[in-house]
Amino acid sequence: MSNLRVGVIGGTGYSGAELIKCLVHHPHAELAVIASQSKAETDIQEIYPHLTDICKFKLEDLQPDILAEKVDTMFFAAPSGASSSLVPQFLERGIRCIDLAGDFRLSEPEVYEKWYQHNSPEKEYLENAVYGLSEIYPQKIKTARLIANPGCYPTAALLGLIPAVQAGLIKGNSIIIDGKSGISGAGRSLSLGVHYSEANENTKAYKLGVHQHIPEIEQVLNAEAADRATVTFTAHLVPMVRGILCTIYADMKKPCITEELQKLYEEFYNEHPFVRIKKAGRLPATKEVSGSNYCDIGLHCDPRTNRITIVAAIDNLLKGAAGQAVQNMNLMNRWDTASGLQFVPNYP
Amino acid sequence: MSNLRVGVIGGTGYSGAELIKCLVHHPHAELAVIASQSKAETDIQEIYPHLTDICKFKLEDLQPDILAEKVDTMFFAAPSGASSSLVPQFLERGIRCIDLAGDFRLSEPEVYEKWYQHNSPEKEYLENAVYGLSEIYPQKIKTARLIANPGCYPTAALLGLIPAVQAGLIKGNSIIIDGKSGISGAGRSLSLGVHYSEANENTKAYKLGVHQHIPEIEQVLNAEAADRATVTFTAHLVPMVRGILCTIYADMKKPCITEELQKLYEEFYNEHPFVRIKKAGRLPATKEVSGSNYCDIGLHCDPRTNRITIVAAIDNLLKGAAGQAVQNMNLMNRWDTASGLQFVPNYP
Amino acid sequence: MSNLRVGVIGGTGYSGAELIKCLVHHPHAELAVIASQSKAETDIQEIYPHLTDICKFKLEDLQPDILAEKVDTMFFAAPSGASSSLVPQFLERGIRCIDLAGDFRLSEPEVYEKWYQHNSPEKEYLENAVYGLSEIYPQKIKTARLIANPGCYPTAALLGLIPAVQAGLIKGNSIIIDGKSGISGAGRSLSLGVHYSEANENTKAYKLGVHQHIPEIEQVLNAEAADRATVTFTAHLVPMVRGILCTIYADMKKPCITEELQKLYEEFYNEHPFVRIKKAGRLPATKEVSGSNYCDIGLHCDPRTNRITIVAAIDNLLKGAAGQAVQNMNLMNRWDTASGLQFVPNYP
Amino acid sequence: MSNLRVGVIGGTGYSGAELIKCLVHHPHAELAVIASQSKAETDIQEIYPHLTDICKFKLEDLQPDILAEKVDTMFFAAPSGASSSLVPQFLERGIRCIDLAGDFRLSEPEVYEKWYQHNSPEKEYLENAVYGLSEIYPQKIKTARLIANPGCYPTAALLGLIPAVQAGLIKGNSIIIDGKSGISGAGRSLSLGVHYSEANENTKAYKLGVHQHIPEIEQVLNAEAADRATVTFTAHLVPMVRGILCTIYADMKKPCITEELQKLYEEFYNEHPFVRIKKAGRLPATKEVSGSNYCDIGLHCDPRTNRITIVAAIDNLLKGAAGQAVQNMNLMNRWDTASGLQFVPNYP
Repeated sequence: MSNLRVGVIGGTGYSGAELIKCLVHHPHAELAVIASQSKAETDIQEIYPHLTDICKFKLEDLQPDILAEKVDTMFFAAPSGASSSLVPQFLERGIRCIDLAGDFRLSEPEVYEKWYQHNSPEKEYLENAVYGLSEIYPQKIKTARLIANPGCYPTAALLGLIPAVQAGLIKGNSIIIDGKSGISGAGRSLSLGVHYSEANENTKAYKLGVHQHIPEIEQVLNAEAADRATVTFTAHLVPMVRGILCTIYADMKKPCITEELQKLYEEFYNEHPFVRIKKAGRLPATKEVSGSNYCDIGLHCDPRTNRITIVAAIDNLLKGAAGQAVQNMNLMNRWDTASGLQFVPNYP
Repeated sequence: MSNLRVGVIGGTGYSGAELIKCLVHHPHAELAVIASQSKAETDIQEIYPHLTDICKFKLEDLQPDILAEKVDTMFFAAPSGASSSLVPQFLERGIRCIDLAGDFRLSEPEVYEKWYQHNSPEKEYLENAVYGLSEIYPQKIKTARLIANPGCYPTAALLGLIPAVQAGLIKGNSIIIDGKSGISGAGRSLSLGVHYSEANENTKAYKLGVHQHIPEIEQVLNAEAADRATVTFTAHLVPMVRGILCTIYADMKKPCITEELQKLYEEFYNEHPFVRIKKAGRLPATKEVSGSNYCDIGLHCDPRTNRITIVAAIDNLLKGAAGQAVQNMNLMNRWDTASGLQFVPNYP
Repeated sequence: MSNLRVGVIGGTGYSGAELIKCLVHHPHAELAVIASQSKAETDIQEIYPHLTDICKFKLEDLQPDILAEKVDTMFFAAPSGASSSLVPQFLERGIRCIDLAGDFRLSEPEVYEKWYQHNSPEKEYLENAVYGLSEIYPQKIKTARLIANPGCYPTAALLGLIPAVQAGLIKGNSIIIDGKSGISGAGRSLSLGVHYSEANENTKAYKLGVHQHIPEIEQVLNAEAADRATVTFTAHLVPMVRGILCTIYADMKKPCITEELQKLYEEFYNEHPFVRIKKAGRLPATKEVSGSNYCDIGLHCDPRTNRITIVAAIDNLLKGAAGQAVQNMNLMNRWDTASGLQFVPNYP
Repeated sequence: MSNLRVGVIGGTGYSGAELIKCLVHHPHAELAVIASQSKAETDIQEIYPHLTDICKFKLEDLQPDILAEKVDTMFFAAPSGASSSLVPQFLERGIRCIDLAGDFRLSEPEVYEKWYQHNSPEKEYLENAVYGLSEIYPQKIKTARLIANPGCYPTAALLGLIPAVQAGLIKGNSIIIDGKSGISGAGRSLSLGVHYSEANENTKAYKLGVHQHIPEIEQVLNAEAADRATVTFTAHLVPMVRGILCTIYADMKKPCITEELQKLYEEFYNEHPFVRIKKAGRLPATKEVSGSNYCDIGLHCDPRTNRITIVAAIDNLLKGAAGQAVQNMNLMNRWDTASGLQFVPNYP
């Protein structure tokens, strides 16, 4: 049986580089093309010297006609906004699309335009896109033509929240998510905020109250919960390259102890190899998932405050982007969910 | 007029080193003695080579009789638990004491013993100790014989919360504090969690629900607020040496906009040079206060969730420890509050 | 055909953890046992939580009789000095041994004892051990019973030097190697020098003139060069977890230009997939090999000073330790040299 | 006596920010104006929020006529090349000038143009500029009208080399300098090489054989040494914000032991408070000088190789730039050399 032919659009960003990492040794998919608007005709090894001898593609121009001939499935790792017009051109040509940007994640155009501040893709595509949170929506993903791959913070936050929300344990309007991200989440584009001398030995919050991941998290929670979720989410930059840690706070609807919660989560994720639940008293650390597709979750019920605290850790570029995208491709093709993703975390 | 003679007990930890930094060039105080249980007879320059030619003391043994002869005011930077028995011996000899450990911060012995898990100092001392949050209790500090210098997280959290709490703007039982600390907060004692290869490129939470700074924060808030405060506080280690960022969440009692809140805070701290309030839309960063005694505070009211978010940044070793201790000494002696503390933040 | 059964002694250090990473997904070898003196009976997942669900071994006690029954090849990742007595017990039982410590690298006992300051292994073993620099000694490695796996600095320095030395291009007594290492090279044992707050934002030299890698480098160079090599080597710690960069200086015996040197190196390493030669004007960076088994080499001839500068970069835990050890196992078994080692560098 | 009025041109770079830090609390100088080509009319607090409440200047336009009225001495912290035309306009107006760029460091125009690749300043200015290596040329500095403040690497390398060179201990053509710099040395301008995610966890060499600090070092050594110096210098970026460590290798002309060398250096720098010589067996670390104007020097004679190794550490932004510039101003005005520079190193 021949391999699936796959391509990457936007191979010059960090998510693109991680897609290449996952795809060059994938047992069932074959990387057939890498394209880039800004760097067409350049050798990928010039852009990423670490790929020397590993990936020898010359970046191709963004011509859907030509690219669509070469692939069965296309990954879009271009900046937010670019996929809106690109993806439909590939869908029309029968190519299955996995979009790592935010363009197709919000199902309502007006919500999209409020938070992203630019024009929404056409409503038809928003409605047909499947939100690719692999562990939560595997059935929908299997038959999807267009995957809206989740954002990095939402992946950690939602994997941490959904079991409790579905079980009716927490109040929807009490959820507070404090996210800490490594700096690769800001991408490879230069800016003062991620200039080394400014970002190192520095921790800061950003985009208070206006982060585009807020409606993404709320949309999914509202689909899963009985009562309406209104989420406060704050993003922070911490001085490391990779990793996201989300610390999540919520009021309990009924008393619960940590061990019960742990058991609930273990059962919820029992069939899902990439989610690991910590034993009571243990907490996740970003380094323990770095370089891998794992999401580690720690849990704590506090009877004193009647709140639960959930801590979820992922590698923002893998489970938070390229890794989950490949996991979704695996689901779409009914391959083992971990195909091409058996990375042992990079420790220390 | 001759200078005040001051000493440092526990000169081998990071807070001790910072005290020395503040005291060697202090215009009114003269560093007269440094003592250490573990390293008596050692030259401080052996322990901290960066102090070569700057501070030439040999560490002295911990003999209260002898030490008390040499100083008017003593700083205690020994590990938690050691001050309980040491401080009274100096108080009895008429020495004013500034304790940087947690021993005298909680006024009720049973609360102390529950959270610190060892015996409380005698109740008399707990009752007479003045909590040295310089901007909030300057009058009490001026006449204190014993200062319980605040913890690093509580300093940032309380300076961030008190104006809103005093103004009755937020619900006492809704307060959530998400603290991120640089690793120097763990001190100079070796442990795997702060071993370089384990801590770098890593972010993690610790001491969930049991951190000893929780009752410290609640005690002060309950003294300042009309309604009872129950606080959820989570400490995190982020991979940098210095700095604490506290992100604080609370439900608003009545609608408020960011600019009003900013104005309230600016007026509250108008006379206090070490607290700087960010303009609406700007947020603090730990690097902007690193190496200084400043506390920078950013504010955000979110009408969508009816919550306020307060972000406070300090250098954990200065405003969070040694700097505030020296500020308290300045207050006790009616010197300019910034004497010896005019450090420009170390940027970049 | 059944897999080779392999074991790891010293599974609790960083080299041990990397061996596990290379072996759990190795196509031809099967990890059969992990042993540890200090942590016998402990679950490896307790020691390294990042291995949860990946490697479920309980550490076994260091009993050669029992361990030798379970494996065909044993990796020794114990601290320097422990292998001297352990390895012979496995050799006698017919087990092939790959030692990652320095115990069997120096062929002369008196040299060993001078630089290591403890007793040498028996001369018989020193003489029979094969120095496992994979690209240089593949034939000897194929038939070896005992591999002395090279040190981290020597691997980078020797791969950088040997083509020029064999070609007679440089003066043996002019070689200066300035090595910069990430801090994981110091291992997982606690010490003040690698305490996070001391090591971060810090660069320093150590072991000037007495580093045990000096005689290791000289021994190999003297075997390969016509004229006697006397090497100055200085080790430095730089604030990162992984990576070694060796900058090597030597006087040219005859004029040479960079492009010629580059061609010489390309040809020398033509058949060796893990050595990548940079084009003239390009230089290696540790991040471009981090998490992989590559050694990247950059070259520069300076007609002004009549010197060449060679820059070699490796991941100290992989090509500098566990990766090369597995590469040697591959050679010993005539498997593809890259089996189990096809790690794409972890970038960014 | 009124204070000296001083100004800073190029206040938006890191050297400019450090100059402000040194000048705002200087006992004898008064910061009168800050100017900037790119950011005129902007509040310095907008550019550097850490200076809020500390320095309230609005940046002024680069009009020599107007600026010259306001100051007695001007510091130039503009990018390399800008000073060539700016400085003469201030000199003509009787202003003493201290230039932190490289424009006036090389006395021969053709050497300047070869290494800097743009037009040299007029020869008259090159000849009259005094090279501001404070400890070596204090007499010339005292009467200078124009100071060419040394580069960061040359400061560390020359302070490390000159005592040995003047004493005739080392061979001029054998000198190799391996420099490691924190990333703030690259300034505040954005580029991929100093983008956080690229630079963190990365060590690399750059500008091999073509770094403009090579002729600067050689020019000074040739003025101080009997035999001609030809220097190999390699610059490296290491992942920290501040600090330079230069490891210097040279062949000894005659046998020498470390203790003798140490004594020679101690005597040489006896009157110079900012140079600290390490005892034999101790080595400097960049963190021990970070945030201060110190240069720490460690020494090692190796009888085995007949080479000496000198290790010198500075803070690249202070002793390597702004600190030494202020030290030169102090010398020019016969103030205490440490005026405004009594910074205790920022440790940990």
